[in-house]
Amino acid sequence: MTWKSFLKSSLNENIEKIGTSATYSSLATVRPDLTPAVRTVVMRGFLAEHYKEETGYKSDLLVVITDRRSRKIKEIQNNPNTEINWYMNGTMSQFRIGGRIHIVSKDFSLLDWNTYVHPTGDQQPSDKKSLALEAFERQKKINPWEAERLRQFILFTADMRANMLGKKTVDALEIEGIDEKGWFQHNQLQELLEEAYSNFTLLVIEVKSVSYWSPSTGSKSML
Amino acid sequence: MTWKSFLKSSLNENIEKIGTSATYSSLATVRPDLTPAVRTVVMRGFLAEHYKEETGYKSDLLVVITDRRSRKIKEIQNNPNTEINWYMNGTMSQFRIGGRIHIVSKDFSLLDWNTYVHPTGDQQPSDKKSLALEAFERQKKINPWEAERLRQFILFTADMRANMLGKKTVDALEIEGIDEKGWFQHNQLQELLEEAYSNFTLLVIEVKSVSYWSPSTGSKSML
Repeated sequence: MTWKSFLKSSLNENIEKIGTSATYSSLATVRPDLTPAVRTVVMRGFLAEHYKEETGYKSDLLVVITDRRSRKIKEIQNNPNTEINWYMNGTMSQFRIGGRIHIVSKDFSLLDWNTYVHPTGDQQPSDKKSLALEAFERQKKINPWEAERLRQFILFTADMRANMLGKKTVDALEIEGIDEKGWFQHNQLQELLEEAYSNFTLLVIEVKSVSYWSPSTGSKSML
Repeated sequence: MTWKSFLKSSLNENIEKIGTSATYSSLATVRPDLTPAVRTVVMRGFLAEHYKEETGYKSDLLVVITDRRSRKIKEIQNNPNTEINWYMNGTMSQFRIGGRIHIVSKDFSLLDWNTYVHPTGDQQPSDKKSLALEAFERQKKINPWEAERLRQFILFTADMRANMLGKKTVDALEIEGIDEKGWFQHNQLQELLEEAYSNFTLLVIEVKSVSYWSPSTGSKSML
């Protein structure tokens, strides 16, 4: 079993036991003054994948969502190295994932899509597609990184989107539909949605090492 | 309320809700190659304190136990800065604790005891003392750091002590009693106990910053 399939099956087992808190992990970075920083983040799974529906693509890149204005963005721009400590309480097991963080934001994504993201050959029938997947597909031909950012933004909850505003003026930012390029639309809140989206940032983690620990097996290196 | 009393009351609330896994936190360090490292550790509370009995002393230093041979020891010797991400699942709240780690081991402790550890004036009647507290008191006059290390070693479980051996030759290292200096004693396993103790190391964290986050209050700095 690859580290990826093992991580996915461990996560599913833990979500079943303890719920979505199994997706919480500790992401460490190094500050410019050489002190460490570490905070809880929600792991959003693998880029261009979805736990419920096929996007037609897969990758080994982990995704975390953050706000462009957060302090960790500056830390990452200075030093993109990370280690993630993912302790899953349900099975009392731990993944330590070392890697490099790429920031995918309004202005930039430095990664070549085709190097990291691969077609799966599978795709579900068009009559079942979610709004997020529809947006992904429409934008995909124009800019695949933007397509994934749009997909994640639409999957995000309306109250989390509202938290991405400069000033919290509304409690929730709903999305009514998408245009032909996959762009989110709202009759009244369009400007606020666009402001939130400008802060909405993906941290894409290129995984370089994985070690796994459990009380029964001890520690082993998986990558 | 001070950060310390708030941390203690939050911890107690979470232990009540989710059990001792509330003591697990993520301790981050920086490796010599400037990549971050982070792993789960068990927080042992404050140095020279005990959640059940009075030692007669208190401090603001947090304690973690590790093995002298662990990789983090080398990282800390190179760069003693740390940040601890302590996410408590019961209340969904998070402490981020920045500080400096001091290694208290067989050979060295660089901190002046009287600067960091203070008498409380309280002490419970002598007929109730645990073996760990008795060892602390006997060794205290000779070497207070060694006294605390002995106390923590006796509080450790017998199977965890066995894990500190170079080769795992026994499953458990019981302690039968202590001598007049507080030193642990065992009729058959004395040599193994001393070997385990030579690897038994306290990481003592001098706290320099504390920030607290909860879903209801958001983020606030406490120190």
